[in-house]
Amino acid sequence: MDSLTEKVLGMLPESPFIRYLGIEIIELDEEHARGRMPFTDRYKNPYGTMHGGCLYALADTVAGTLANMSGEAVTTVEGGIHFLEPAADTDYVYCDAKMKRSGKHLITVEVELKDDAGKLLDCGCLSFFRTGYKLDKD
Amino acid sequence: MDSLTEKVLGMLPESPFIRYLGIEIIELDEEHARGRMPFTDRYKNPYGTMHGGCLYALADTVAGTLANMSGEAVTTVEGGIHFLEPAADTDYVYCDAKMKRSGKHLITVEVELKDDAGKLLDCGCLSFFRTGYKLDKD
Amino acid sequence: MDSLTEKVLGMLPESPFIRYLGIEIIELDEEHARGRMPFTDRYKNPYGTMHGGCLYALADTVAGTLANMSGEAVTTVEGGIHFLEPAADTDYVYCDAKMKRSGKHLITVEVELKDDAGKLLDCGCLSFFRTGYKLDKD
Amino acid sequence: MDSLTEKVLGMLPESPFIRYLGIEIIELDEEHARGRMPFTDRYKNPYGTMHGGCLYALADTVAGTLANMSGEAVTTVEGGIHFLEPAADTDYVYCDAKMKRSGKHLITVEVELKDDAGKLLDCGCLSFFRTGYKLDKD
Repeated sequence: MDSLTEKVLGMLPESPFIRYLGIEIIELDEEHARGRMPFTDRYKNPYGTMHGGCLYALADTVAGTLANMSGEAVTTVEGGIHFLEPAADTDYVYCDAKMKRSGKHLITVEVELKDDAGKLLDCGCLSFFRTGYKLDKD
Repeated sequence: MDSLTEKVLGMLPESPFIRYLGIEIIELDEEHARGRMPFTDRYKNPYGTMHGGCLYALADTVAGTLANMSGEAVTTVEGGIHFLEPAADTDYVYCDAKMKRSGKHLITVEVELKDDAGKLLDCGCLSFFRTGYKLDKD
Repeated sequence: MDSLTEKVLGMLPESPFIRYLGIEIIELDEEHARGRMPFTDRYKNPYGTMHGGCLYALADTVAGTLANMSGEAVTTVEGGIHFLEPAADTDYVYCDAKMKRSGKHLITVEVELKDDAGKLLDCGCLSFFRTGYKLDKD
Repeated sequence: MDSLTEKVLGMLPESPFIRYLGIEIIELDEEHARGRMPFTDRYKNPYGTMHGGCLYALADTVAGTLANMSGEAVTTVEGGIHFLEPAADTDYVYCDAKMKRSGKHLITVEVELKDDAGKLLDCGCLSFFRTGYKLDKD
């Protein structure tokens, strides 16, 4: 693992919310990131399926991790998610993030969320702004 | 409080994730809902500000509560949030949800998130689909 | 060509705006549609590249054509497009629309716009509502 | 009218597409812009109402004009529009653009489109990136 990847992955456990959600990154390079989140009772909405906020948090975290592979800290400009199927009856929800454009200032990432069986649950796109703060500066 | 409002508000504590986030609805009628979420350390992202997933969860919960005032259970079709300023140095994040259109099948809600000082942090729009399941049926 | 495809393709020239833009559908089945629009001076924005409204119109038209393959007239619920690179120095802009979910009431379509060289210009997602009006009823 | 406003308004007729659509800006300051577009047969979609691409073009043009009041040329990062009611039986479609945040690099603008009677047709949000190119440099 190179030092940037190590640095990027090392940032995640610094977030109490990411730790609470149990999000893990299981694949990561400059073009693609894959993460997953377990589905336990504590993530349920009033209907008993996974709360949209958890799904969004997974998408934002995996996409943001990919955006960090630019070598800079990033902030989310906006994110839009389409909820296609409820997440239920799955041990994990998986998120694949794919780089669509990595520009000098702006980064656009596409996400797809799937259940254990590979069924597509959600899809969307997020934009990030590169803050100029280098992640590997020390 | 009428029976529909009571029913809608009663659904929220059924969700472990909404309880964890500490989201409360403090105003609710058919055109507008206002909710808030405390900002504690456990909602932080790796940069120390509030995780976008928490902000999204607040938006989705308050907007969904307003959509439930249609009298039917709803599912989120899609949601898009623009992150304008980081949430930091605030005791609560407030969310105002405003009905833009309540149709026979689809409901569109605008959201604005603000800090204690009233500064606008995030804005966006969410669409909901009415499932046909009546909330006050029993 | 089956009668539904014929009917769907036959709707496009009924729109003066689609005729003005010169949009053609060059591939169409239930999972995918491909269309293209020539880039002439009349589609330019004040900066001399293609106006975002033309790009959006192409995306909406091709995605909507795919959604019509459900056999019903549809209305656009919402659409979001990320503008990655300006459209310039290309004879055509191509749009690929891919079915993400075709539900009983709602249809979600992903779009990618590319130039002659295959460079990705824009990407996004649109949702459609099935009106119940059958396209092949007569 | 100050020289920046004059410069910003002067850019619009340079675009053949904006001229074709007949878009006019009727109010403009740093916080708000209002524009309108006539509804003629040539903007119709296959269903006989106004094509979503025209509505989007109006939103993008009015919001972009407001963003230009930052004093810099801007590019659209992304735009999302919710289509609430079809545009029909109206002489004009009006668009109000409201500044949500004007940052050093990014600008976020909310839009609402209405018909002659003031009925809300569409709403949404667009993000712009400031290119650094000063509009009033000469």
